[in-house]
Amino acid sequence: METWINERMSGQIAFIAEVDKLKGVLRQTFIMDGSRRENTAEHSWNIAVFAMLMHEYAEPKPDLNRVVRMLLLHDIVEIDAGDTFAYDAVGYEDKEEREQAAARRIYGLLPEDQRDEWVQAWREFEEGETVEARYANAIDRLLPLVHNYYTGGQSWVRHGIKRSQVIRRIAPVEHISPPMWEFAMELLDRAVEKGILKEDEPGERG
Amino acid sequence: METWINERMSGQIAFIAEVDKLKGVLRQTFIMDGSRRENTAEHSWNIAVFAMLMHEYAEPKPDLNRVVRMLLLHDIVEIDAGDTFAYDAVGYEDKEEREQAAARRIYGLLPEDQRDEWVQAWREFEEGETVEARYANAIDRLLPLVHNYYTGGQSWVRHGIKRSQVIRRIAPVEHISPPMWEFAMELLDRAVEKGILKEDEPGERG
Repeated sequence: METWINERMSGQIAFIAEVDKLKGVLRQTFIMDGSRRENTAEHSWNIAVFAMLMHEYAEPKPDLNRVVRMLLLHDIVEIDAGDTFAYDAVGYEDKEEREQAAARRIYGLLPEDQRDEWVQAWREFEEGETVEARYANAIDRLLPLVHNYYTGGQSWVRHGIKRSQVIRRIAPVEHISPPMWEFAMELLDRAVEKGILKEDEPGERG
Repeated sequence: METWINERMSGQIAFIAEVDKLKGVLRQTFIMDGSRRENTAEHSWNIAVFAMLMHEYAEPKPDLNRVVRMLLLHDIVEIDAGDTFAYDAVGYEDKEEREQAAARRIYGLLPEDQRDEWVQAWREFEEGETVEARYANAIDRLLPLVHNYYTGGQSWVRHGIKRSQVIRRIAPVEHISPPMWEFAMELLDRAVEKGILKEDEPGERG
Protein backbone atom coordinates (compact mmCIF):
# COMPACT_ATOMS: atom_id res chain seq x y z
CA MET A 1 0.00 0.00 0.00
CA GLU A 2 1.39 3.39 -1.00
CA THR A 3 1.44 5.74 1.97
CA TRP A 4 1.12 9.51 2.11
CA ILE A 5 2.15 12.10 4.69
CA ASN A 6 -1.44 12.12 5.98
CA GLU A 7 -1.56 8.65 7.50
CA ARG A 8 -5.32 8.49 7.89
CA MET A 9 -5.84 9.53 4.30
CA SER A 10 -3.40 6.84 3.11
CA GLY A 11 -5.91 4.15 4.03
CA GLN A 12 -8.73 6.05 2.40
CA ILE A 13 -6.81 6.52 -0.86
CA ALA A 14 -5.84 2.84 -0.80
CA PHE A 15 -9.54 2.06 -0.42
CA ILE A 16 -10.63 4.18 -3.38
CA ALA A 17 -7.89 2.57 -5.49
CA GLU A 18 -8.99 -0.91 -4.38
CA VAL A 19 -12.71 -0.46 -5.01
CA ASP A 20 -11.92 0.70 -8.54
CA LYS A 21 -11.72 -3.04 -9.29
CA LEU A 22 -15.52 -3.16 -9.11
CA LYS A 23 -15.42 -1.77 -12.66
CA GLY A 24 -14.04 -5.13 -13.74
CA VAL A 25 -16.59 -7.35 -11.98
CA LEU A 26 -19.18 -8.50 -14.53
CA ARG A 27 -22.81 -9.22 -13.76
CA GLN A 28 -25.17 -11.49 -15.71
CA THR A 29 -27.25 -8.43 -16.54
CA PHE A 30 -26.64 -6.65 -19.86
CA ILE A 31 -26.55 -2.89 -20.27
CA MET A 32 -29.76 -1.71 -21.88
CA ASP A 33 -28.44 -1.40 -25.43
CA GLY A 34 -27.66 -5.13 -25.19
CA SER A 35 -24.05 -4.65 -26.31
CA ARG A 36 -22.25 -6.11 -23.30
CA ARG A 37 -22.58 -7.29 -19.72
CA GLU A 38 -22.88 -4.67 -17.03
CA ASN A 39 -20.17 -4.26 -14.44
CA THR A 40 -20.88 -3.86 -10.76
CA ALA A 41 -19.64 -0.26 -10.50
CA GLU A 42 -22.12 0.83 -13.18
CA HIS A 43 -24.82 -1.18 -11.48
CA SER A 44 -24.11 0.51 -8.16
CA TRP A 45 -24.68 3.92 -9.73
CA ASN A 46 -27.72 2.67 -11.60
CA ILE A 47 -29.42 1.20 -8.55
CA ALA A 48 -28.76 4.32 -6.44
CA VAL A 49 -30.47 6.47 -9.09
CA PHE A 50 -33.31 3.94 -9.34
CA ALA A 51 -33.73 4.14 -5.55
CA MET A 52 -34.11 7.93 -5.83
CA LEU A 53 -36.55 7.51 -8.71
CA MET A 54 -38.86 4.93 -7.09
CA HIS A 55 -38.73 6.18 -3.51
CA GLU A 56 -42.19 7.73 -3.66
CA TYR A 57 -43.78 4.29 -4.18
CA ALA A 58 -42.32 2.64 -1.07
CA GLU A 59 -44.40 2.07 2.06
CA PRO A 60 -43.37 2.65 4.78
CA LYS A 61 -41.15 5.43 3.43
CA PRO A 62 -37.45 4.58 3.95
CA ASP A 63 -34.81 7.21 4.71
CA LEU A 64 -33.57 7.70 1.15
CA ASN A 65 -30.16 8.99 2.19
CA ARG A 66 -29.39 5.82 4.10
CA VAL A 67 -30.68 3.73 1.20
CA VAL A 68 -28.48 5.50 -1.33
CA ARG A 69 -25.34 5.15 0.76
CA MET A 70 -26.11 1.50 1.45
CA LEU A 71 -26.56 0.80 -2.25
CA LEU A 72 -23.34 2.56 -3.22
CA LEU A 73 -21.46 0.21 -0.91
CA HIS A 74 -23.54 -2.97 -1.07
CA ASP A 75 -21.66 -4.77 -3.83
CA ILE A 76 -18.06 -3.81 -3.03
CA VAL A 77 -17.48 -7.29 -1.59
CA GLU A 78 -17.92 -8.67 -5.12
CA ILE A 79 -14.33 -7.58 -5.85
CA ASP A 80 -13.22 -10.74 -4.03
CA ALA A 81 -16.41 -12.75 -3.89
CA GLY A 82 -17.62 -12.19 -7.47
CA ASP A 83 -21.18 -11.59 -8.55
CA THR A 84 -23.45 -14.49 -7.63
CA PHE A 85 -26.19 -14.87 -10.24
CA ALA A 86 -29.65 -14.50 -8.74
CA TYR A 87 -30.69 -17.98 -9.94
CA ASP A 88 -27.47 -19.83 -9.01
CA ALA A 89 -28.38 -22.06 -6.05
CA VAL A 90 -24.87 -23.52 -5.73
CA GLY A 91 -23.24 -20.10 -5.74
CA TYR A 92 -25.51 -19.02 -2.93
CA GLU A 93 -24.31 -21.85 -0.65
CA ASP A 94 -21.07 -20.17 0.31
CA LYS A 95 -21.94 -16.62 -0.77
CA GLU A 96 -22.11 -15.30 2.78
CA GLU A 97 -18.78 -16.76 3.82
CA ARG A 98 -17.01 -15.43 0.72
CA GLU A 99 -18.51 -12.00 1.19
CA GLN A 100 -17.64 -11.80 4.90
CA ALA A 101 -13.98 -12.46 4.10
CA ALA A 102 -14.09 -9.87 1.32
CA ALA A 103 -15.58 -7.26 3.65
CA ARG A 104 -12.83 -7.87 6.21
CA ARG A 105 -10.10 -7.37 3.64
CA ILE A 106 -11.50 -4.45 1.65
CA TYR A 107 -13.15 -2.36 4.37
CA GLY A 108 -10.10 -3.20 6.47
CA LEU A 109 -8.15 -0.66 4.41
CA LEU A 110 -10.17 2.18 5.97
CA PRO A 111 -9.47 3.97 9.25
CA GLU A 112 -11.17 1.96 12.02
CA ASP A 113 -14.08 4.31 12.73
CA GLN A 114 -14.97 4.60 9.06
CA ARG A 115 -14.49 0.88 8.52
CA ASP A 116 -16.97 0.07 11.29
CA GLU A 117 -19.55 2.52 9.96
CA TRP A 118 -19.29 1.30 6.37
CA VAL A 119 -19.27 -2.39 7.25
CA GLN A 120 -22.39 -1.71 9.26
CA ALA A 121 -24.13 -0.20 6.20
CA TRP A 122 -23.20 -3.27 4.15
CA ARG A 123 -24.38 -5.66 6.91
CA GLU A 124 -27.65 -3.78 7.19
CA PHE A 125 -28.25 -4.39 3.49
CA GLU A 126 -27.35 -8.08 3.78
CA GLU A 127 -29.53 -8.64 6.84
CA GLY A 128 -32.44 -6.99 5.08
CA GLU A 129 -34.36 -6.17 8.23
CA THR A 130 -34.66 -2.39 8.43
CA VAL A 131 -37.14 -0.45 6.30
CA GLU A 132 -34.18 0.93 4.35
CA ALA A 133 -32.58 -2.47 3.74
CA ARG A 134 -35.88 -3.99 2.65
CA TYR A 135 -36.46 -1.22 0.15
CA ALA A 136 -32.87 -1.41 -1.13
CA ASN A 137 -33.09 -5.18 -1.55
CA ALA A 138 -36.45 -5.01 -3.30
CA ILE A 139 -35.40 -2.51 -5.94
CA ASP A 140 -32.09 -4.35 -6.42
CA ARG A 141 -34.25 -7.30 -7.48
CA LEU A 142 -36.61 -5.21 -9.59
CA LEU A 143 -34.10 -3.32 -11.75
CA PRO A 144 -32.74 -6.40 -13.58
CA LEU A 145 -36.26 -7.01 -14.92
CA VAL A 146 -36.10 -3.66 -16.67
CA HIS A 147 -32.66 -4.53 -18.09
CA ASN A 148 -33.91 -7.89 -19.30
CA TYR A 149 -37.01 -6.38 -20.81
CA TYR A 150 -35.07 -3.77 -22.79
CA THR A 151 -32.45 -6.24 -23.99
CA GLY A 152 -34.80 -8.91 -25.30
CA GLY A 153 -34.39 -10.99 -22.15
CA GLN A 154 -30.64 -11.47 -22.59
CA SER A 155 -29.91 -13.09 -19.25
CA TRP A 156 -33.32 -14.82 -18.98
CA VAL A 157 -32.97 -16.48 -22.38
CA ARG A 158 -29.32 -17.40 -21.83
CA HIS A 159 -30.14 -19.18 -18.58
CA GLY A 160 -33.59 -20.49 -19.55
CA ILE A 161 -35.31 -18.59 -16.73
CA LYS A 162 -39.08 -19.07 -16.25
CA ARG A 163 -41.68 -16.58 -15.10
CA SER A 164 -42.18 -18.35 -11.74
CA GLN A 165 -38.46 -18.07 -10.94
CA VAL A 166 -38.54 -14.32 -11.52
CA ILE A 167 -41.67 -13.97 -9.43
CA ARG A 168 -40.07 -15.83 -6.51
CA ARG A 169 -36.96 -13.69 -6.85
CA ILE A 170 -38.86 -10.39 -6.72
CA ALA A 171 -41.34 -11.44 -4.02
CA PRO A 172 -39.97 -8.77 -1.61
CA VAL A 173 -41.22 -6.04 -3.97
CA GLU A 174 -44.85 -6.91 -3.25
CA HIS A 175 -44.44 -6.16 0.45
CA ILE A 176 -42.83 -2.78 0.07
CA SER A 177 -44.75 -1.35 -2.88
CA PRO A 178 -48.01 -2.38 -4.58
CA PRO A 179 -47.44 0.04 -7.51
CA MET A 180 -43.99 -1.39 -8.20
CA TRP A 181 -45.37 -4.91 -7.92
CA GLU A 182 -48.10 -4.13 -10.45
CA PHE A 183 -45.50 -2.69 -12.80
CA ALA A 184 -43.36 -5.83 -12.42
CA MET A 185 -46.32 -8.12 -13.17
CA GLU A 186 -47.22 -6.07 -16.23
CA LEU A 187 -43.61 -6.24 -17.41
CA LEU A 188 -43.47 -10.02 -16.96
CA ASP A 189 -46.75 -10.48 -18.87
CA ARG A 190 -45.35 -8.51 -21.79
CA ALA A 191 -42.03 -10.37 -21.60
CA VAL A 192 -43.78 -13.73 -21.85
CA GLU A 193 -45.91 -12.43 -24.76
CA LYS A 194 -42.76 -11.29 -26.56
CA GLY A 195 -41.23 -14.72 -26.02
CA ILE A 196 -38.24 -13.38 -24.05
CA LEU A 197 -39.27 -15.07 -20.79
CA LYS A 198 -40.38 -18.72 -20.59
CA GLU A 199 -43.91 -19.40 -19.38
CA ASP A 200 -44.23 -22.09 -16.73
CA GLU A 201 -45.74 -25.47 -17.45
CA PRO A 202 -49.37 -25.74 -16.26
CA GLY A 203 -49.47 -26.29 -12.51
CA GLU A 204 -45.84 -25.23 -12.07
CA ARG A 205 -46.48 -21.59 -11.37
CA GLY A 206 -46.51 -19.94 -7.97
CA MET B 1 -41.47 5.69 -25.32
CA GLU B 2 -43.02 2.48 -24.04
CA THR B 3 -45.90 3.23 -21.68
CA TRP B 4 -47.22 1.24 -18.73
CA ILE B 5 -50.56 1.21 -16.94
CA ASN B 6 -49.07 3.48 -14.28
CA GLU B 7 -48.66 6.64 -16.33
CA ARG B 8 -46.41 8.46 -13.90
CA MET B 9 -44.13 5.47 -13.65
CA SER B 10 -43.91 5.25 -17.45
CA GLY B 11 -41.83 8.42 -17.53
CA GLN B 12 -39.65 7.22 -14.69
CA ILE B 13 -38.96 3.88 -16.37
CA ALA B 14 -38.23 5.69 -19.64
CA PHE B 15 -35.76 7.84 -17.69
CA ILE B 16 -33.91 4.88 -16.15
CA ALA B 17 -33.71 3.25 -19.60
CA GLU B 18 -32.40 6.50 -21.10
CA VAL B 19 -29.73 7.20 -18.49
CA ASP B 20 -28.37 3.68 -19.01
CA LYS B 21 -26.59 5.23 -21.99
CA LEU B 22 -24.19 6.89 -19.56
CA LYS B 23 -22.46 3.48 -19.45
CA GLY B 24 -21.36 4.15 -23.02
CA VAL B 25 -20.00 7.68 -22.53
CA LEU B 26 -16.22 7.49 -22.25
CA ARG B 27 -14.07 9.85 -20.21
CA GLN B 28 -10.40 10.68 -20.74
CA THR B 29 -9.66 9.08 -17.39
CA PHE B 30 -8.55 5.43 -17.29
CA ILE B 31 -9.78 2.91 -14.75
CA MET B 32 -7.09 2.30 -12.17
CA ASP B 33 -5.73 -0.93 -13.64
CA GLY B 34 -4.98 1.11 -16.78
CA SER B 35 -6.77 -1.35 -19.07
CA ARG B 36 -9.38 0.96 -20.58
CA ARG B 37 -11.05 4.36 -20.37
CA GLU B 38 -13.63 4.88 -17.66
CA ASN B 39 -17.25 5.46 -18.54
CA THR B 40 -19.35 8.14 -16.92
CA ALA B 41 -21.70 5.76 -15.10
CA GLU B 42 -18.76 4.15 -13.33
CA HIS B 43 -17.33 7.57 -12.59
CA SER B 44 -20.62 8.71 -11.07
CA TRP B 45 -20.53 5.80 -8.62
CA ASN B 46 -16.84 6.36 -7.97
CA ILE B 47 -17.17 10.05 -7.19
CA ALA B 48 -20.16 9.50 -4.89
CA VAL B 49 -18.12 7.00 -2.85
CA PHE B 50 -15.15 9.39 -2.86
CA ALA B 51 -17.44 12.14 -1.55
CA MET B 52 -18.44 9.88 1.35
CA LEU B 53 -14.81 8.99 1.97
CA MET B 54 -13.38 12.53 2.02
CA HIS B 55 -16.28 14.34 3.67
CA GLU B 56 -14.51 14.64 6.99
CA TYR B 57 -11.83 16.89 5.46
CA ALA B 58 -14.18 19.52 4.04
CA GLU B 59 -14.64 22.89 5.72
CA PRO B 60 -17.34 24.10 6.10
CA LYS B 61 -18.95 20.66 6.33
CA PRO B 62 -21.39 20.12 3.42
CA ASP B 63 -24.62 18.13 3.76
CA LEU B 64 -23.27 14.82 2.47
CA ASN B 65 -26.67 13.51 1.41
CA ARG B 66 -27.23 16.42 -0.93
CA VAL B 67 -23.68 16.08 -2.26
CA VAL B 68 -24.14 12.38 -3.02
CA ARG B 69 -27.43 12.89 -4.84
CA MET B 70 -25.98 15.80 -6.81
CA LEU B 71 -23.00 13.71 -7.87
CA LEU B 72 -25.14 10.76 -8.95
CA LEU B 73 -26.99 13.08 -11.33
CA HIS B 74 -24.29 15.59 -12.27
CA ASP B 75 -23.02 13.93 -15.44
CA ILE B 76 -26.27 12.59 -16.93
CA VAL B 77 -26.26 15.43 -19.48
CA GLU B 78 -23.13 13.85 -20.98
CA ILE B 79 -25.40 11.34 -22.74
CA ASP B 80 -26.12 14.05 -25.31
CA ALA B 81 -23.35 16.54 -24.62
CA GLY B 82 -20.44 14.10 -24.27
CA ASP B 83 -17.63 14.33 -21.75
CA THR B 84 -15.66 17.56 -22.12
CA PHE B 85 -12.02 16.94 -21.24
CA ALA B 86 -10.88 19.12 -18.36
CA TYR B 87 -8.11 20.69 -20.44
CA ASP B 88 -10.11 21.20 -23.66
CA ALA B 89 -10.60 24.97 -23.96
CA VAL B 90 -12.54 24.73 -27.23
CA GLY B 91 -14.90 22.08 -25.85
CA TYR B 92 -15.66 24.36 -22.91
CA GLU B 93 -16.85 27.18 -25.18
CA ASP B 94 -20.25 25.64 -25.89
CA LYS B 95 -20.31 23.14 -23.02
CA GLU B 96 -23.03 24.99 -21.14
CA GLU B 97 -25.32 25.32 -24.14
CA ARG B 98 -24.97 21.65 -25.08
CA GLU B 99 -25.61 20.56 -21.52
CA GLN B 100 -28.68 22.77 -21.08
CA ALA B 101 -30.28 21.18 -24.15
CA ALA B 102 -29.39 17.73 -22.87
CA ALA B 103 -30.94 18.47 -19.49
CA ARG B 104 -34.17 19.61 -21.12
CA ARG B 105 -34.46 16.43 -23.14
CA ILE B 106 -33.36 13.85 -20.60
CA TYR B 107 -34.85 15.21 -17.38
CA GLY B 108 -37.92 16.04 -19.49
CA LEU B 109 -38.79 12.35 -19.43
CA LEU B 110 -39.57 12.59 -15.71
CA PRO B 111 -42.85 13.64 -14.11
CA GLU B 112 -42.80 17.44 -13.78
CA ASP B 113 -42.27 17.68 -10.02
CA GLN B 114 -39.40 15.21 -10.09
CA ARG B 115 -37.96 16.82 -13.20
CA ASP B 116 -37.84 20.21 -11.49
CA GLU B 117 -36.21 18.81 -8.37
CA TRP B 118 -33.57 16.85 -10.27
CA VAL B 119 -32.75 19.63 -12.72
CA GLN B 120 -32.30 21.85 -9.70
CA ALA B 121 -29.74 19.43 -8.21
CA TRP B 122 -27.82 19.39 -11.50
CA ARG B 123 -27.96 23.21 -11.79
CA GLU B 124 -26.73 23.57 -8.24
CA PHE B 125 -23.68 21.50 -9.16
CA GLU B 126 -23.06 23.51 -12.32
CA GLU B 127 -23.42 26.86 -10.58
CA GLY B 128 -21.01 25.75 -7.88
CA GLU B 129 -22.11 28.26 -5.31
CA THR B 130 -23.49 26.32 -2.35
CA VAL B 131 -21.22 24.63 0.16
CA GLU B 132 -22.41 21.28 -1.24
CA ALA B 133 -21.75 22.21 -4.87
CA ARG B 134 -18.32 23.60 -4.06
CA TYR B 135 -17.34 20.39 -2.27
CA ALA B 136 -18.78 18.21 -5.07
CA ASN B 137 -16.92 20.20 -7.73
CA ALA B 138 -13.66 20.13 -5.81
CA ILE B 139 -13.56 16.37 -5.32
CA ASP B 140 -14.69 15.83 -8.92
CA ARG B 141 -11.48 17.61 -9.88
CA LEU B 142 -9.34 15.78 -7.33
CA LEU B 143 -10.29 12.17 -8.11
CA PRO B 144 -8.80 12.12 -11.66
CA LEU B 145 -5.40 12.88 -10.09
CA VAL B 146 -5.61 9.61 -8.21
CA HIS B 147 -6.60 7.78 -11.42
CA ASN B 148 -3.73 9.35 -13.28
CA TYR B 149 -1.27 8.56 -10.53
CA TYR B 150 -2.24 4.89 -10.39
CA THR B 151 -2.22 4.46 -14.17
CA GLY B 152 1.20 5.98 -14.85
CA GLY B 153 -0.36 9.27 -15.86
CA GLN B 154 -2.31 7.80 -18.79
CA SER B 155 -4.36 10.88 -19.64
CA TRP B 156 -1.66 13.39 -18.58
CA VAL B 157 0.95 11.76 -20.80
CA ARG B 158 -1.42 11.30 -23.75
CA HIS B 159 -2.36 14.98 -23.70
CA GLY B 160 1.02 16.37 -22.62
CA ILE B 161 -0.40 17.95 -19.47
CA LYS B 162 1.90 20.01 -17.24
CA ARG B 163 1.90 20.39 -13.48
CA SER B 164 0.70 24.01 -13.62
CA GLN B 165 -2.36 22.99 -15.67
CA VAL B 166 -3.35 20.43 -13.07
CA ILE B 167 -2.81 22.94 -10.27
CA ARG B 168 -5.06 25.50 -11.96
CA ARG B 169 -7.68 22.83 -12.55
CA ILE B 170 -7.77 21.72 -8.91
CA ALA B 171 -7.53 25.21 -7.39
CA PRO B 172 -11.02 24.87 -5.80
CA VAL B 173 -9.70 22.07 -3.60
CA GLU B 174 -7.48 24.48 -1.66
CA HIS B 175 -10.46 26.52 -0.52
CA ILE B 176 -12.55 23.67 0.76
CA SER B 177 -9.89 21.47 2.34
CA PRO B 178 -6.27 22.10 3.33
CA PRO B 179 -5.65 18.36 4.02
CA MET B 180 -6.90 17.39 0.57
CA TRP B 181 -4.83 20.14 -1.00
CA GLU B 182 -1.69 18.92 0.77
CA PHE B 183 -2.40 15.42 -0.46
CA ALA B 184 -2.84 16.69 -4.02
CA MET B 185 0.44 18.63 -3.91
CA GLU B 186 2.27 15.58 -2.56
CA LEU B 187 0.76 13.44 -5.33
CA LEU B 188 1.82 15.93 -8.02
CA ASP B 189 5.37 16.06 -6.64
CA ARG B 190 5.62 12.30 -6.83
CA ALA B 191 4.04 12.24 -10.30
CA VAL B 192 6.63 14.70 -11.62
CA GLU B 193 9.41 12.66 -9.96
CA LYS B 194 8.13 9.49 -11.65
CA GLY B 195 8.06 11.30 -14.99
CA ILE B 196 4.31 10.79 -15.52
CA LEU B 197 3.51 14.51 -15.29
CA LYS B 198 5.48 17.20 -17.13
CA GLU B 199 7.24 19.82 -15.05
CA ASP B 200 6.73 23.42 -16.15
CA GLU B 201 9.48 25.43 -17.76
CA PRO B 202 11.20 27.84 -15.32
CA GLY B 203 8.99 30.87 -14.76
CA GLU B 204 5.93 29.21 -16.29
CA ARG B 205 4.51 27.85 -13.08
CA GLY B 206 1.64 29.32 -11.10
